[in-house]
Formats: sequence, structure tokens, C-alpha cells
Amino acid sequence: MKNLAKVMTLLFSTLLLAGCGNLNNSSLSSKSNEKSSKVTTTNTSKSDQYSTLLENGKYHTSAISGLSADSDSDNNSNAAAFEHGLMDISKKEFSTDRYYLQEGKFISASTAQKWLDRKSDKNPAGLNPEDNGSTDPDKRKPIYLQQLLEQDFYTQNGKNYTLSGMTIGLAMNDVDYYTKEKYGAQFETKISPEQRLSIGKQMADKIVARLRKQPNLKKIPITVGLYRQNVNDSLIGGSFFQYGVSQAKQKQVSDWKAINQENQVWPVINNEKPVNESDSDSFANFKNHVQNYFPDLSGVTAQAHYQDKKLQGLVITINTQFYGVAQINSFTQFVQDAANRYLPQQPMIEVHIQTVQDLQALITKDYNSKQFSSHVLTSY
Amino acid sequence: MKNLAKVMTLLFSTLLLAGCGNLNNSSLSSKSNEKSSKVTTTNTSKSDQYSTLLENGKYHTSAISGLSADSDSDNNSNAAAFEHGLMDISKKEFSTDRYYLQEGKFISASTAQKWLDRKSDKNPAGLNPEDNGSTDPDKRKPIYLQQLLEQDFYTQNGKNYTLSGMTIGLAMNDVDYYTKEKYGAQFETKISPEQRLSIGKQMADKIVARLRKQPNLKKIPITVGLYRQNVNDSLIGGSFFQYGVSQAKQKQVSDWKAINQENQVWPVINNEKPVNESDSDSFANFKNHVQNYFPDLSGVTAQAHYQDKKLQGLVITINTQFYGVAQINSFTQFVQDAANRYLPQQPMIEVHIQTVQDLQALITKDYNSKQFSSHVLTSY
Repeated sequence: MKNLAKVMTLLFSTLLLAGCGNLNNSSLSSKSNEKSSKVTTTNTSKSDQYSTLLENGKYHTSAISGLSADSDSDNNSNAAAFEHGLMDISKKEFSTDRYYLQEGKFISASTAQKWLDRKSDKNPAGLNPEDNGSTDPDKRKPIYLQQLLEQDFYTQNGKNYTLSGMTIGLAMNDVDYYTKEKYGAQFETKISPEQRLSIGKQMADKIVARLRKQPNLKKIPITVGLYRQNVNDSLIGGSFFQYGVSQAKQKQVSDWKAINQENQVWPVINNEKPVNESDSDSFANFKNHVQNYFPDLSGVTAQAHYQDKKLQGLVITINTQFYGVAQINSFTQFVQDAANRYLPQQPMIEVHIQTVQDLQALITKDYNSKQFSSHVLTSY
Repeated sequence: MKNLAKVMTLLFSTLLLAGCGNLNNSSLSSKSNEKSSKVTTTNTSKSDQYSTLLENGKYHTSAISGLSADSDSDNNSNAAAFEHGLMDISKKEFSTDRYYLQEGKFISASTAQKWLDRKSDKNPAGLNPEDNGSTDPDKRKPIYLQQLLEQDFYTQNGKNYTLSGMTIGLAMNDVDYYTKEKYGAQFETKISPEQRLSIGKQMADKIVARLRKQPNLKKIPITVGLYRQNVNDSLIGGSFFQYGVSQAKQKQVSDWKAINQENQVWPVINNEKPVNESDSDSFANFKNHVQNYFPDLSGVTAQAHYQDKKLQGLVITINTQFYGVAQINSFTQFVQDAANRYLPQQPMIEVHIQTVQDLQALITKDYNSKQFSSHVLTSY
């Protein structure tokens, strides 16, 4: 993995905005005043990560990322978990070996905002239901769709990059937060898993049908993932629960598959049941061991990420009041040893050792790897 | 280096507070109500780092760390650079293979504070000069000694850990900041390198003579390092300029050697001259390349650390407004490639990629290593 980093090269080519989605190439010597933009790619040092397509050397940010329906949803972890999870789904359909990633650019910001808003006479394109006037939590029509995300995938044909796939994420609310008057108290409409699934699928079909009207999107496979937006008071993001594929030229999504994905914060609170008792016990032993030797730690917590009931990743945060160089070195060594002894072997693991805001040291290992590596941050 | 992490084991033993500085051992089965404390060590995964001695499983923090003379010195980088640099000096005399580190415990906080304060009728032990009453920057006697630091080194003899060496750091002011009245305007007395050196050496002799009165410290080698405390408006810590050794039983420090150590912030400002033009050009090329492709970066700066005019370490900080998962992944790949292409090969290098306060990704390589490794922080 490290060796690959050494053979990185940058590929230069030119993007012609042809209707077919082909990115036409030119050599490095192309004049900069030509009406075309240069396409380059960043190469990746890890085989399970996408190389990305740059345009005129610049990273393209999706215009719709961060847009949301008119709702009081407010959980900072949702945005990262939504994007991260959608990329995992993309990897199932578009292999990182063959496809180049670019953040979505076929759904414009104004289009996405219309789709996210409620349907109305003024906004016939709205995917969320028309307001029925009720403010009763059970009688009103909630906002189901909270956010949209688009990821585009290109393949390289000789010197060209061709749009060859797309993934769309729909963030569906678990709870729709609303007020009865401006700045008033917050109320909640709970949305059931069944509603989330059936309405999500309907919306996916509508979105795919609309996308198929764009000439460049007629012939590519479009994958759609349905994400459960986590509630506001959670310390963790939500997770994807279903995805489907609309094969080239199809106007609907078929091949729906359930995704069994769960995130959990450890230690669990409020009598919540651990996803897997043995995993959370391992973490408890690790935590006890560390706190036994360094009793002044202000907190040891973890975010656990499960796929198909298997612990896939574990991000542990240890808050310390340590500042001394020798002390942080020593503590990092101690924690790395404890991680080796107590934590499960398979998952990707990150241990963040930090003071109030600043990371002081990082201990990591990859998925399926048995070896931790650690790094204490330097300052001169 | 990673493999060593796997063979870590913890050694358990018991500390008897015998006057000779020997740490007597007992087996793991020693009863916990014995009047003794358990000594354990943290093991290190890197060959150039000390294992540290824990007492009763707890890390011992030096009581004098952070104490300072009564002065308006205020540069956050000084504390870390002072401790980091002192450890580098310790490594010259006490090899990391043989010696275990413990933060100093033979100079008490009250003793250190007396030594750091001005000499007076009330405080005959003061190492800083008596106040002569003048408030003129050139006529008054400045505070020369700003901070003290002690590091203790133990060797293992069978089951015992024996105190076998000590390193003392003296942080000497470059500028002594003072006010003529309480809360008044700040004035400065500049201290010349010659004064810093000659007064530092005198103080070192006095300190060693005082330490030799403690029975456990008669027979061990004591290393003393002299550090130039950096001025308040610098973004970087100071550096050591001289160190000497007082061999076992000697009451003075001899074998003084100059240390050529320099820290510098890049890009240089105010027409400051780079320590080495070619190194700072490499950084400028790296910075230009990165900012050319990602023009929205709010800053790319570096702390460079030189020893004997050779670039030893480089800590680069890149401030971004990137939050998206795909964007940070892509940017990290891009930066790692640029680091490989443009930065000098030999030094230890850390690249911190961060948003306002939070580290998002870390790219590192060791001294003399050619391979970078990178890690993008996860959040679920």
C-alpha cells in the first residue's frame, strides 16, 4: 500500500463538455486559452479508495452537498456518515480499480432544493408530501426526505474519461422535527422503518425517471442508497438500510437489497443493548485497563460501526489532560499495547488521543490487519 | 518498528524507597498492602524512544515542570521545545536501549521555585541575581533563568531498577520581559548569547553542587543542557545551545559542547534568511503546487527543525475548509504525492491537514525513511 504511493503519477487530459459525457483528452501542451478544461486525477495509495477526477486541476465539490429540506434536523455526525456510507455502497457497484470518483454534478442545487421541498402548486417537483395543514404529530404529513447526495463514476478509455455510473443517496428522516409557529417549541413526527423504506423506494424511482431525461444519464447504471438520518440527540450518524440498482436504460430501481448497518456509541447508556456483547466487553476491558493505570483520563469512548452484525470499524477517543512530551509518548505506547491485548483483531481501529481540542497522538490499524501503528504529533 | 509492538510485555516489580536509589523488586504476587509501590514500565515500539518507569502503575509527572521565574515570558511553544530538546540531549548520554526514563523527582517544586526566584535575604538559594532597584533595561539585573526541567534515568539490574543518570535543563531567557509597575507597560532587557552561555554554565555548576548533597545523586552522571527560551512573539519554541556532563562524583560540569540547533517558521517573514535556501525552496515548491490545485486553502506553513545545519524535522500544517469525506480523501492523496515529489527526503516529516481546530488527516514519515504513510481520520 505504501509502495503504490511511490509510483503515483498525474495524468493530464482535457475535458470537452460533449453531450455524451465523454471527457475528451488533449496533451499537456494544450494551450490554456482553449475553451476546454484540463482533467487530472489524484491517485490513491490505498487499493480500497477511489482516485478522483480533478477539472482544471481543481477538485469539484457537489453543489447539492449540505442542502436539506426545511426541517430542524441537527446532528453533526449525519453529514459525514451519509457521505461515507454512500461511498461504501458505490464500492459494491463501481470497483475502485476501474472507476474514478467525482462528486456529483448532474443534479443542480436549485433542482435538489425543489426536490427536497414539499410538493405545492408553486413547487410541483417537490418529493416531500404536500402540507395538509395539520400540526398534530400523527395527522400531519412529515418531511421524509432530508438530504440528497450524488456521486459520479468515470472510466478511462485511452485518453478519455467517460461517465459510466452514478450513485444517489437519499437521507430519510427517522424523526421529522417541526414547530407549530416560527421560533416555537419543537415537536416530532416519528417515521416508521416501513414508511421510510416504502416512501424511499417510491422517491428513488421518481428521481431515476427524472435523471434519465438528461441525455448523458440514459445509458449508465444508477445505484440508489436509502439512509436513515439519525435523531438530533445522538452522538453518532445514521446508517444505510437499503440499496438498489437501475441498470442502463431502466427507468426504475430494481434489485433492492437490505443493508444491515449499525453505529453505536460505547459505553452504551440508558440500558441500550450492545450490538455484540463480546465486542463491547473487549472495549470495556481496554477502557478499564487504561483508566486503571492513568486514572486522570477524562473520558474513553468509542464509535462502533457494524455491517451485517460484524464489527467493521472502531474509533476510540481518549481525552487526556496530558501535555508533556514524555508523558504523551509514554501514554501512547501504553495505549498501543493495551489495544493489541484487548481489542478485537479484525476491525479497522483508530485511537485518537487528545487534549481539549488538539489531537496529540494517533494509533491506527487497517481492517483485517493485526498491526497497529502509532504516531505522536510533533511540535517544534 | 511495527513488529516490535507485538512483542511488548509489561514488567512488574516493586519499588522500595531505599536511600540508595535502588528500586527493589518483588514478583507480581506481592500483596498490595505492603508498604511499597509497584514499578512497571511502558515499552516502546520505536527503538529511538525511551521506555518509561511507572510507579504503582502510574506515570510520574515532574513537580517542577511548568514552574517558571517571575517574568512575563509567554510563548506556548517553549514548554514542548524545551522538554523535547532535553530528551534529545539525554539520548546522547543515556541510550534508549539501556535506560528507562522517569520524569524528574529529586528536585522538589518548592526547591525549584526558590532556585528560579531572585536571590535575596529571604531567598539565599535564588539563582537569578539580586534586584538592584533599577528599572532601566540596560542597568537592571535581568531574570536569566526562566525554567528548570529534570529527567531521571534508570537501568535494570535483574529485578531492580537503579537510578543511573540524570539530565537537567536550564531554560535561559533571550529577552527578560518586565514591567515598571504592576499591570504597567511591558519592557524588555535583551540578554546576549555570551551572557546566556557564561551565566548558564555558572548556574549549572551551582545546581550540580547542590544535587550532589543528596545521597542518591553522589555517584551518577548528571548531564546539563542550556536552552534559549524563545521570545514571546515567535510562533516556534527556542533551542538548546550547549550541554555538558558532570561525571559520577564530580561537583562541577565539564566537557561542555556546543549544540547547533535552530527552529524556523516557513515561509520566512520580515526578510529573515532561511537556514538553508534549498530546503525552504523545496517547501515553497510544495506549497505552490498544493495551492495551485486547491486555491481555497487558508494557509500552508511549516516548522523546520535544524541540527548542525541539517534539516532534522519538518512539521507542515495545512488549514482547509474541507469537510466532505471524498474531498478530504482526495486532498490527502494529492498532498502525499506532492510531499513525495517536492519535500527533502531525509528529515522526519509530519503534514497536518486540519479544519479550524480539528485534524482531518495526517501524513507522516520517519527520519531517513523514504516512505510516507497517510491516514484520514474516520468518524461514524
